[in-house]
Amino acid sequence: MDGLEAAAVSVLKRAVELDTKRRWTESMTCYQEGLHLLMEVIKGLPEGSRRSAFRTKATEYMDRAEKLKTQIEAEKRLGKYHEQLHIDEDSTGHSYESVFGRFLDSAVTVVEVEDPYIRAVHQCYNFLRLCELCVRKCPRLRQITLLTGSDPGDADAQRERLNKIGASLSERGVKLAITFSETLHDREIRINNGWIIKIGRGLSYFKPPASKFCLGYNDLDLRPCQETTVDIIHKAASK
Amino acid sequence: MDGLEAAAVSVLKRAVELDTKRRWTESMTCYQEGLHLLMEVIKGLPEGSRRSAFRTKATEYMDRAEKLKTQIEAEKRLGKYHEQLHIDEDSTGHSYESVFGRFLDSAVTVVEVEDPYIRAVHQCYNFLRLCELCVRKCPRLRQITLLTGSDPGDADAQRERLNKIGASLSERGVKLAITFSETLHDREIRINNGWIIKIGRGLSYFKPPASKFCLGYNDLDLRPCQETTVDIIHKAASK
Repeated sequence: MDGLEAAAVSVLKRAVELDTKRRWTESMTCYQEGLHLLMEVIKGLPEGSRRSAFRTKATEYMDRAEKLKTQIEAEKRLGKYHEQLHIDEDSTGHSYESVFGRFLDSAVTVVEVEDPYIRAVHQCYNFLRLCELCVRKCPRLRQITLLTGSDPGDADAQRERLNKIGASLSERGVKLAITFSETLHDREIRINNGWIIKIGRGLSYFKPPASKFCLGYNDLDLRPCQETTVDIIHKAASK
Repeated sequence: MDGLEAAAVSVLKRAVELDTKRRWTESMTCYQEGLHLLMEVIKGLPEGSRRSAFRTKATEYMDRAEKLKTQIEAEKRLGKYHEQLHIDEDSTGHSYESVFGRFLDSAVTVVEVEDPYIRAVHQCYNFLRLCELCVRKCPRLRQITLLTGSDPGDADAQRERLNKIGASLSERGVKLAITFSETLHDREIRINNGWIIKIGRGLSYFKPPASKFCLGYNDLDLRPCQETTVDIIHKAASK
């Protein structure tokens, strides 16, 4: 039970830390996960002072999570929800799933990606990983749109890679609509539940892996990152 | 709220289905996740007959999950817990995380892998993915042991790949101990919390991806599998 208790404490600490930094949607996820663990700890304890102290703590965290939810909803309605995450150079734990997976769910049907640099092989892999995440988390997904720049060096190879991704998506009933633009600069991901994720560097904020056989080669949560800022915004759905 | 309700129903249905198939640890995970979703649905409903019907349902599922937990614990104590999962040809949703990620937690310090075929490049990648999963889910991990066969075709390249994985693990304070055996046949993963996972085909039960730019190239949950059987056994921890 010791390991479980330590896990609950660590996740709840993280929730409070994110809460004070106004990273509310991330904080919510941690409160929920931490409370889940804490309830498991409580179930395993005999009646007594320790159990009731844990119960009191759990109630406090639950109240805070409830309040947070109301605050997020209020700011969403006002169209001014904003959360900022700074990814430090060489830090880990920032896979697409960790950064914005919590916004992808069964209500989502369309995801729009704007990123001028989905060109080179590793950039197309990043885009593929994003598509995989969307397909896995959004059972009702029907379209992904990509607005990117054409690779002046080898446009044909770039198109072939993207077309392969499109063919694979269409096998699962998801349409990939690709548009090329030479003037695009902004990078953002718009999810049709109203959430917008703006990553300073776009999808390519991971460092190249040290080798093909090192931790982080597959699992982006273990891959060191380049410094970048992520802004998470909610816009009252306009469609 | 419709999407949330549909998600809760689908996960709870799956829990019941797994329950009847005696895939109890998997079923537990689904009951917990489904109940979590159901509580969210209930929170969003006004007081009334629908809300109280959902509450009754939630209580029933909670009771069943509690009973299941007691049953699992009793069979673990008797040293006879056994759960079987059959992976169908071409089915998806069977990444290492989905198949046995629930047994990897902060109590785990040692994972032992026996698989005669961690030899070719794709087999070494599979082993790397397993290592990544263990590192991500087990913060106290200190050792992974691998017992495998030597590749008669190119033993040097095999060792080089495995040594690179070992070097990468050691950077995170995890020792990789490799032993080669020419007589090994069984495939199993032993976790030092007492769980043993036996996969008929060992770690290599995934089909090769159709291309490098198709869904499932990175995310093993989207990769079609070859037919195999997974036995999950618990052995009273002997160390």
